[in-house]
Amino acid sequence: MQILNFCRLREGVKSCTVRPLACLFTSTCGMAKSKFEYVRNFEVEDTCLRNCYIVVRLDGRNFHRFAEQHKFAKPNDNRALGLMTRSARSVMEELEDIIIGYGQSDEFSFVFKRTSTWFKRRASKLMTLVASQFSSSYVFHWKDFFGDHPLLYPPGFDGRVVLYPSNRNLKDYLSWRQADCHINNLYNTVFWTLVQKGGLTTVQAEDRLKGTLAADKNEILFSEFDINYNKEPAVYRKGTTLIWEKHDQTVITEVMKDKIKEVHGTPRSKRSVQVYHSDIIGEDFWEQHSNIFEDDGC
Amino acid sequence: MQILNFCRLREGVKSCTVRPLACLFTSTCGMAKSKFEYVRNFEVEDTCLRNCYIVVRLDGRNFHRFAEQHKFAKPNDNRALGLMTRSARSVMEELEDIIIGYGQSDEFSFVFKRTSTWFKRRASKLMTLVASQFSSSYVFHWKDFFGDHPLLYPPGFDGRVVLYPSNRNLKDYLSWRQADCHINNLYNTVFWTLVQKGGLTTVQAEDRLKGTLAADKNEILFSEFDINYNKEPAVYRKGTTLIWEKHDQTVITEVMKDKIKEVHGTPRSKRSVQVYHSDIIGEDFWEQHSNIFEDDGC
Amino acid sequence: MQILNFCRLREGVKSCTVRPLACLFTSTCGMAKSKFEYVRNFEVEDTCLRNCYIVVRLDGRNFHRFAEQHKFAKPNDNRALGLMTRSARSVMEELEDIIIGYGQSDEFSFVFKRTSTWFKRRASKLMTLVASQFSSSYVFHWKDFFGDHPLLYPPGFDGRVVLYPSNRNLKDYLSWRQADCHINNLYNTVFWTLVQKGGLTTVQAEDRLKGTLAADKNEILFSEFDINYNKEPAVYRKGTTLIWEKHDQTVITEVMKDKIKEVHGTPRSKRSVQVYHSDIIGEDFWEQHSNIFEDDGC
Amino acid sequence: MQILNFCRLREGVKSCTVRPLACLFTSTCGMAKSKFEYVRNFEVEDTCLRNCYIVVRLDGRNFHRFAEQHKFAKPNDNRALGLMTRSARSVMEELEDIIIGYGQSDEFSFVFKRTSTWFKRRASKLMTLVASQFSSSYVFHWKDFFGDHPLLYPPGFDGRVVLYPSNRNLKDYLSWRQADCHINNLYNTVFWTLVQKGGLTTVQAEDRLKGTLAADKNEILFSEFDINYNKEPAVYRKGTTLIWEKHDQTVITEVMKDKIKEVHGTPRSKRSVQVYHSDIIGEDFWEQHSNIFEDDGC
Repeated sequence: MQILNFCRLREGVKSCTVRPLACLFTSTCGMAKSKFEYVRNFEVEDTCLRNCYIVVRLDGRNFHRFAEQHKFAKPNDNRALGLMTRSARSVMEELEDIIIGYGQSDEFSFVFKRTSTWFKRRASKLMTLVASQFSSSYVFHWKDFFGDHPLLYPPGFDGRVVLYPSNRNLKDYLSWRQADCHINNLYNTVFWTLVQKGGLTTVQAEDRLKGTLAADKNEILFSEFDINYNKEPAVYRKGTTLIWEKHDQTVITEVMKDKIKEVHGTPRSKRSVQVYHSDIIGEDFWEQHSNIFEDDGC
Repeated sequence: MQILNFCRLREGVKSCTVRPLACLFTSTCGMAKSKFEYVRNFEVEDTCLRNCYIVVRLDGRNFHRFAEQHKFAKPNDNRALGLMTRSARSVMEELEDIIIGYGQSDEFSFVFKRTSTWFKRRASKLMTLVASQFSSSYVFHWKDFFGDHPLLYPPGFDGRVVLYPSNRNLKDYLSWRQADCHINNLYNTVFWTLVQKGGLTTVQAEDRLKGTLAADKNEILFSEFDINYNKEPAVYRKGTTLIWEKHDQTVITEVMKDKIKEVHGTPRSKRSVQVYHSDIIGEDFWEQHSNIFEDDGC
Repeated sequence: MQILNFCRLREGVKSCTVRPLACLFTSTCGMAKSKFEYVRNFEVEDTCLRNCYIVVRLDGRNFHRFAEQHKFAKPNDNRALGLMTRSARSVMEELEDIIIGYGQSDEFSFVFKRTSTWFKRRASKLMTLVASQFSSSYVFHWKDFFGDHPLLYPPGFDGRVVLYPSNRNLKDYLSWRQADCHINNLYNTVFWTLVQKGGLTTVQAEDRLKGTLAADKNEILFSEFDINYNKEPAVYRKGTTLIWEKHDQTVITEVMKDKIKEVHGTPRSKRSVQVYHSDIIGEDFWEQHSNIFEDDGC
Repeated sequence: MQILNFCRLREGVKSCTVRPLACLFTSTCGMAKSKFEYVRNFEVEDTCLRNCYIVVRLDGRNFHRFAEQHKFAKPNDNRALGLMTRSARSVMEELEDIIIGYGQSDEFSFVFKRTSTWFKRRASKLMTLVASQFSSSYVFHWKDFFGDHPLLYPPGFDGRVVLYPSNRNLKDYLSWRQADCHINNLYNTVFWTLVQKGGLTTVQAEDRLKGTLAADKNEILFSEFDINYNKEPAVYRKGTTLIWEKHDQTVITEVMKDKIKEVHGTPRSKRSVQVYHSDIIGEDFWEQHSNIFEDDGC
């Protein structure tokens, strides 16, 4: 028996040239998987252009609501920021070829090295693996940061891929995200100070800040609340930068030789992810970590 | 002070036309976020072609190792399959416009409706959100299926997007995945029966099965182990199909009227995700759920 | 001797991993073409999604100026329209798998069949070959339409590719182009009648037509100039549709047999491109040519 | 009257949500072009990544046959090479932002500058315009190179787009094409010398060259035919490079002042396309024309 399927055109009758006939589950004919395999040809290649940095940026989905429901402190919740950084570290350690990560608020960017050939540079693989690993880590490590404060539902993060052909473009991308962090955090710091310490309603605070410049906001904090914005924790003001660093170690091994214990110390270099809350818009950070980027001239 | 950056060509000197000068963190100049915003232009559009079904398929990363380390039963672990289905349900309930999900082993496919405009049909958004929601749900619901059996590390799932222009193509895609389920499960069932009940080593079992057809495998199970493969649990043989179904409900409300309690019953139609382990290669399932697909003629 | 190339990072020194060293033209080392072949990996696949119609639309570049300089008659120049159609016919005859062409003014659309695998459905190949063949034909056949009226410079046409998954979408695309033809031609007909027969300046004619509806324009033509728009040549009002049609032929062959000439007539079916200036928005045309489209259900 | 169109599902009846109803050509309803305009949404963006060189390469379609039919001299036809170069010059002069062209045999590559925003960097526009302008110029200028030797039919050229992020990648691309020119031309030169002067059949010549290295081929030419390959015309060995160069000019204007003719000479700098047949694999050419590339560091 065969599954018949007449393809009827309103204007006439014409036979199908694409569709295979489905085969039945009998021992004589098998599952005929091959009849359906033509559908693989609908997949399209999405290889990232060679010799470009591949940036994957994640953003929390509906995190305003998520923060409300989990009673995050305002304007910054140390537990939530710590969990974001922990999840980002998991991404860098589990996936290959990520040279730098930068996060702030509910977003995190990961940069794959220019010459990476991981997953054949397929954009879909890279961004889904980053999104997946980050999300599962977020739930996995929740307890380490929030203790008994329960996670009410599993959160979602969306992702995207952007390519940057030069070191300058990549640095400007990271500068763009840190400038975004600065602007938002300065605003949020003043806003919530006006509300929490100044007794304003949120509407009043919003009105108060309308049209103010950075200098005005610094001034409000300083003159009215005795707060020097530049002394606020760097993690709030600068966000979080993760890079790989090498450390010299001495690995101790004990060997029994002729019934006598010998202790050997072997020097070894180990790579691990380090956390910074530094300015990455200026050149200092990059000069101190000069091996992060590959040369443009290649 | 300005960050100077001479762009030096080996062959001469030429000024940069793309790169903006970075501005400093002073109150006079602000963070100059706008200087860096040109980097947004490096993002490229990845809209999915209209009037096509959008399929997102997830695959577990290194799940062979994951299954070993978490001591999954072989050839099928009910807890693991249940958790996959639970996570898939979470994806369908949290994200929009998914009309059907199909899963087997460590993979799950989700089909967005043809006319969906969710996230402007941006492929990157759709696939990362599916990957993220599935992964966070997997960890979140682990305990519900594995109880005190601990999750050792957060797992990863990669994803991809494939478009199908016609109902026939989409059905053939789903048939392809179910045929894959059938072939793998039949093999695994015989293989592990030979090992677990027949006392063969894994190498011996592999040798025994080399070159056998479906009929041969059915015969080994039946004549040597008295197992009728077609009576094995459908969830193993057919995988798991999730669709939306409407149910009539009566919502009971109690109202106090003149100190007398009145009970009202309001009929309401509710949509929920239903689980099937049915054959989806033949036409029966589709005829019984004829509202899943949109018309090709549109 | 080797071409040395130190890749110098401002922040340090790092060797290039991508760039190959160029080799010299000596008999010992050859041209080392292979050293450069890595650049092929920068090409990206641009396969058109299967089971979709592939539309390539060409538009004349700066044709307003081209028409002025070659003194095209207004609002329609029969020579120019004839040459467009001739070039389109050349495209259909030289390239494969085009099932229909539709043109108006300085644009022409070509539809490749759904199941075409010509040039592996690579979008770049399809659109450049259409643009190239059309353009070379335009110059090649110029004399056949313009006689001694010289072609002053070689014209350019830009192209694009659009995919349509269903017959309905494709018909609506063609309807869209024909509706565009209708609207522009009605406007241009009234406009140039007002100028050429009504003695208005172009500015006055523009003013006169501001805000008028189709009915108003028909009325101006009819009451003021005794022109029934619906009796204007169909090629102006409906544009030009090219399709393949089969014709029965009798091929005559003469054979000498025993010094006697025998004449044989063999019936043969020949395919050729036919030209229509028909309405393609309604269903009539498609019902009369029901074999143009493939079935949506495949 | 309205065109009704019931969309019938085999499994049931469902109304169309995508397809608009076609409207009729009556004065009350107009052409309803807007009903069809949704089809524009099927176009997809194909912007080239910023800050990368955009290379468009053209290849003659079936040029082996074309060369045979037009009796091109072998292994190189000066008329054909001249016409290719003339057409390439037309492309550079008519289109914007092309900084360099390189051609050999029946292919030509054009490089758009890194920072070009011409046609919003849309790949389809760039490659079709190059293919179109080249093709129409080829026919337009045929007579200038082939005189009365007639062009039998309009030729076709296919095109593709490739992006290169760094100067090194771009130079390596151009080197790759010149190495290809060298290898093919050396082979063809020996092959046709063996046939034309050595009296071998083409099959014998092919056999003779099987497995030979560059040095062997040079040796055959030199010892058997007294030909020093390095003294063959550079246009054959190196192909053709087109770049823009500035020239100082004195523009002479004559002015009548008080009935006396005054002659003014104004210095002016004019840009024009220059033709080279130089080695572009080594660094010399680039050092002499150091303003072609933009800096990688931008």
